[in-house]
Amino acid sequence: MMRISQLSTASRVPIPTIKYYLREGLLPAGEQTSATRAEYGERHVRRLRLIRALLEVGRLPIASIRKVIAAVDDENLSMHHVLGTAHYAIAPVVELHAADEEWTRARAEADGLIGDLGWQVDPDAPTRDELAQAILTLSQLGMPATGEVLRSYAEVAIGLVTEHEINSIPIDGPREAAVEALVIGTVVYGRVLDVMRRLAQESASARVFGISYD
Amino acid sequence: MMRISQLSTASRVPIPTIKYYLREGLLPAGEQTSATRAEYGERHVRRLRLIRALLEVGRLPIASIRKVIAAVDDENLSMHHVLGTAHYAIAPVVELHAADEEWTRARAEADGLIGDLGWQVDPDAPTRDELAQAILTLSQLGMPATGEVLRSYAEVAIGLVTEHEINSIPIDGPREAAVEALVIGTVVYGRVLDVMRRLAQESASARVFGISYD
Repeated sequence: MMRISQLSTASRVPIPTIKYYLREGLLPAGEQTSATRAEYGERHVRRLRLIRALLEVGRLPIASIRKVIAAVDDENLSMHHVLGTAHYAIAPVVELHAADEEWTRARAEADGLIGDLGWQVDPDAPTRDELAQAILTLSQLGMPATGEVLRSYAEVAIGLVTEHEINSIPIDGPREAAVEALVIGTVVYGRVLDVMRRLAQESASARVFGISYD
Repeated sequence: MMRISQLSTASRVPIPTIKYYLREGLLPAGEQTSATRAEYGERHVRRLRLIRALLEVGRLPIASIRKVIAAVDDENLSMHHVLGTAHYAIAPVVELHAADEEWTRARAEADGLIGDLGWQVDPDAPTRDELAQAILTLSQLGMPATGEVLRSYAEVAIGLVTEHEINSIPIDGPREAAVEALVIGTVVYGRVLDVMRRLAQESASARVFGISYD
């Protein structure tokens, strides 16, 4: 057990920020050992890591973080559903589309691709709409969105997830630790992949246009 | 040449939205053929595609879109620098770090990795800070951020970019068309990769936790 100053040192989060998270209900209160003193534990250190990952790396608004944390804390939710809650929180909102022919076709293409890949995805998952929207935009812009191109992205994604991300989850340990690792990994490795892609683009563009920084 | 109603049909953007883009200076004015009538061309159709991609798929604020469009329109800028402007616009802001030992180490690791990969990246590119931040966060969270893991993400990223993204740019056509394709590809394929990764995670999680939607 530790005092708030020790929690601050252990977590590298400043005391005023910790107090803000306590007021916002993101961090559970410490154990009150006297009228002016509360003690914190390992659980608080871990929870601060989760909040920082969602806030600083995931850039989620406080309201979304609160939802993710409620899911992490709800022991009746399966880990799979906690991940789903995190996914919904980090996903961009897909605007409702008129159920026109084009949208129906894009959505059918998204569902067909997921089915062909043999992926287990909830029929109601909003990620299906996100994929359909990307397919629709690419085709409206006249850019390649063939099954072959999409499949390349899909193969790369499943490769990274199964090789690195799912394996780093300590599923044999306490539920809370596993859930937190799952949620943090979702956010942080997503950021890694995104920045790597932009670095790769800058490098590929430099080559195409004959620019060197060496 | 076409009237605003035809531009709306050709671009699938409603007339009030077109007028809004005109007022915001995102879309260049049409050619005034009488006091009450302006004519639009292919250039306006293409520009509307670019705006929609940045706004709806990239979710950039209007101010950022204005910067990207100014770069696209500036014929003195090389295409490589226009891409850089687009990259900076879609990148999350990396907060300034205290130049402490940990940050210096993470940044050196990021630079070392980019160097080892032989990538051509501007020494001042903010993406270097983004990568350093991701490395720092992963190591503070006790999650794997070894060179090996990062290299897997890097290889995947460069593979997708060189196989699909750079090749879809019509670099032999007019500059404006090439630049617009470059910028749109950056934003839209980034979205495709991001949603594929979350779909793959949902599927991998369903398998690990024994859930089937079949």
